[in-house]
Amino acid sequence: MGELTEPLEQPLDPRPRVVIVGGGFAGIHAANGLAHLPVDVTVVDRRNHHTFQPLLYQVALAVLSPADIAQPIRTILRKHRNTQVLMDEVVGIDVSTRQIALGSGAQLPFDYLVLATGATHSYFGRDDWAPFAPGLKTIEDALEIRRRVLLAFELAERQMVEHGWHPPLNFVVIGGGPTGVELAGAISDIAQLYMRHDFRHIDPSKSRVLLLEGSPRILAAYPPDLSAKAEAALARLGVEVHTQTHVTGLGPGWVEAAGKRMDAVVTLWAAGVQASPLGKLLGATPAVKLDRRGCVFVDAFLNPPGLPEVFVLGDLARLEQDGCTVPGVAQPAMQMGDHIAKILAADLAGAPRPPFRYFDKGDMATIGRMDAVARLEWPFKAHMSGFPAWAAWLTVHIFFLIGFRNRIWVFFAWIWTYFTFTRGARLITGDQRLPGWQDQLAAGQAQSPDPPQSSDLSS
Amino acid sequence: MGELTEPLEQPLDPRPRVVIVGGGFAGIHAANGLAHLPVDVTVVDRRNHHTFQPLLYQVALAVLSPADIAQPIRTILRKHRNTQVLMDEVVGIDVSTRQIALGSGAQLPFDYLVLATGATHSYFGRDDWAPFAPGLKTIEDALEIRRRVLLAFELAERQMVEHGWHPPLNFVVIGGGPTGVELAGAISDIAQLYMRHDFRHIDPSKSRVLLLEGSPRILAAYPPDLSAKAEAALARLGVEVHTQTHVTGLGPGWVEAAGKRMDAVVTLWAAGVQASPLGKLLGATPAVKLDRRGCVFVDAFLNPPGLPEVFVLGDLARLEQDGCTVPGVAQPAMQMGDHIAKILAADLAGAPRPPFRYFDKGDMATIGRMDAVARLEWPFKAHMSGFPAWAAWLTVHIFFLIGFRNRIWVFFAWIWTYFTFTRGARLITGDQRLPGWQDQLAAGQAQSPDPPQSSDLSS
Repeated sequence: MGELTEPLEQPLDPRPRVVIVGGGFAGIHAANGLAHLPVDVTVVDRRNHHTFQPLLYQVALAVLSPADIAQPIRTILRKHRNTQVLMDEVVGIDVSTRQIALGSGAQLPFDYLVLATGATHSYFGRDDWAPFAPGLKTIEDALEIRRRVLLAFELAERQMVEHGWHPPLNFVVIGGGPTGVELAGAISDIAQLYMRHDFRHIDPSKSRVLLLEGSPRILAAYPPDLSAKAEAALARLGVEVHTQTHVTGLGPGWVEAAGKRMDAVVTLWAAGVQASPLGKLLGATPAVKLDRRGCVFVDAFLNPPGLPEVFVLGDLARLEQDGCTVPGVAQPAMQMGDHIAKILAADLAGAPRPPFRYFDKGDMATIGRMDAVARLEWPFKAHMSGFPAWAAWLTVHIFFLIGFRNRIWVFFAWIWTYFTFTRGARLITGDQRLPGWQDQLAAGQAQSPDPPQSSDLSS
Repeated sequence: MGELTEPLEQPLDPRPRVVIVGGGFAGIHAANGLAHLPVDVTVVDRRNHHTFQPLLYQVALAVLSPADIAQPIRTILRKHRNTQVLMDEVVGIDVSTRQIALGSGAQLPFDYLVLATGATHSYFGRDDWAPFAPGLKTIEDALEIRRRVLLAFELAERQMVEHGWHPPLNFVVIGGGPTGVELAGAISDIAQLYMRHDFRHIDPSKSRVLLLEGSPRILAAYPPDLSAKAEAALARLGVEVHTQTHVTGLGPGWVEAAGKRMDAVVTLWAAGVQASPLGKLLGATPAVKLDRRGCVFVDAFLNPPGLPEVFVLGDLARLEQDGCTVPGVAQPAMQMGDHIAKILAADLAGAPRPPFRYFDKGDMATIGRMDAVARLEWPFKAHMSGFPAWAAWLTVHIFFLIGFRNRIWVFFAWIWTYFTFTRGARLITGDQRLPGWQDQLAAGQAQSPDPPQSSDLSS
């Protein structure tokens, strides 16, 4: 490992240098797989922690603390003696000289490069919407969503005390994929169950949660029967689901969709993703092709065409298998990460590389406290819903949550929450005020003698 | 409680309106005491949560998560039907008309006003030092300190990989009171124990921790024998204690003290406190006197002279008892909070008010993982140190930690940490970069061919 520190004074190290960019599911699995091969591994991430993204919405809705679902990357990989971790940002990739440029100004040479930097939100060209409708990809995103949701209730209570009136507590979630469904269900839980005894002047259970989806059904990647079950489960929680409803505008305190404008005390964005900008850095190389979301087309060996020393994994990769695109979720990312060790072991043995095949075990999404839908492909084929699907979801997620401490921790946090209806992590941290526009809006509304007219989607 | 919402339409409510400003120990204890009296209570705080300040340093040094030591004020007080909680800031106090002005623009009338907004850092007129030496009073402060300490190690590792050299890992804590001692001990723990397996290129155990104190001994409020024991315990942890050492300057990456300038990768401020600005708001009233830290002089009934309807509690109060000043720590704050109910009960019964007397049970401060010093006054008089003092500290702090969930939670987090030497909460959140000056400094140092000369205090 010394070669990076003193590049000119050390004898040439014959061990291949593998640089993994990104400490998500794909990157961590790749590093774990490479731990026992004769290679030197450097994991580069601009954050110090791995985030268990499937549970991020539970941080956003104040069930869990950030530390319950995130761990320092170097702690996860501490036992791998061939692995070093570097907290830095990648700002350039030069495939011809086999170097990446880091934000700190240094160059990092590689023999193999593994790109696994995932995806971020896409506002479909309307980045000006971002301040009014945050998405959910990072711990910081989750804390910002938590701040907005909790502050909305606090502000409404304050307005009741001071002015005897508060704006309607409409929470609008844009996008009916798994994240949107989970957010909508969790906001409903908070309002209906956990908050009900905390306020004197407002009734949180009278909040409205609206889920807006452009396509004809929510959970479009799931079989139609599960979409219908999910919609019914959301309806039981009081969530108003509007499909075929395209958002045409949004701003401070409002959302415009289906030609109508409605009040929205908090708006959340779960509608679109795009690949991390690293795809574009690699895309400058001839022969590398990106799809319209910025994902890098890779072959069955996870290489962009003609770049056998570069691997692209997880949400950043665009892989076709049996005529379908492998989805950008956790499972294929983990499997791709695991596959890297098999390919490099073959290279080291001088054997042909084994092709990657995604083994689809199924999909699951939770809906509120005790409900879920699941499409199982393994160990048997089945469609599940209701409490059994939720129990399956809990088991799988606790099992996969990286780190033993976090597993038992999160399990106890859940048990506690479900039995006591309290939320332990309901803290507003960071800025204690609403975003400027939201505070102004509240002040403006409070001064107007009549509540503002809101024509909403259900009218 | 309806009178605030619609002040003109309700019949006059004969129940006295008590407004408590501040949800710290004093404010929460006052609200708890008033729960069973025929009064209407409003607790105003600009944060939504109560913070258990004695454990804040454990959030800063990544043992605990914010949610382990903080809880929403309205959750703590949810069972008190005569109590409402308002998240707002107090910007004015008018004693003559008995109203406080809120940041949102509203006025809140009171019959009794309880001020318990505590204290904040004081840089002794050098507020320009604040960006380079954060103090520890809030959850946000703790997360900022955590960010700086963890980033210092990350940056050193990165510099070793990229340049083969890193600046000395000197952590300087300014101020030898309980907070400074606890911070210094905890940083030493992190560097010596918890971080040692995580890095490949730096040796965190070679970090230096320096504790600078202006007066002749640390823990000046404790008996001299305990100060000496604490200093010995810190020395065993490798902390370099410098007493009679006044800081004369500090800036990006350096501290100047005793005429010498030394490198400091992280500087923390635990040297001075001043009363919250609310003391000044009240100080505009004639007859109200403030001491030089901005604390409000109160009599044995916790009133400023001539204002029997105004009470000042906790760190904001300056109370003399038997010729000594009651210290600004948790115990007197709790006891003053409890006393408010006794005074108001007397008022309601037309009886004379009972005077407040501070009952001193003692003091304790931890030093690292297994050591502490304690001055006990109750249940028996004793000076303790070492593991027994630490065990006593643990018992007392778990007992007092508000909220049952938090008690068992924190207990398990500790047990886990002590047995496994891992830190669960070691996440860098918020800005992932060092403060601008620190990054520039690192870049500048890395470009210089020789390590910068540092003359330090021990040379």
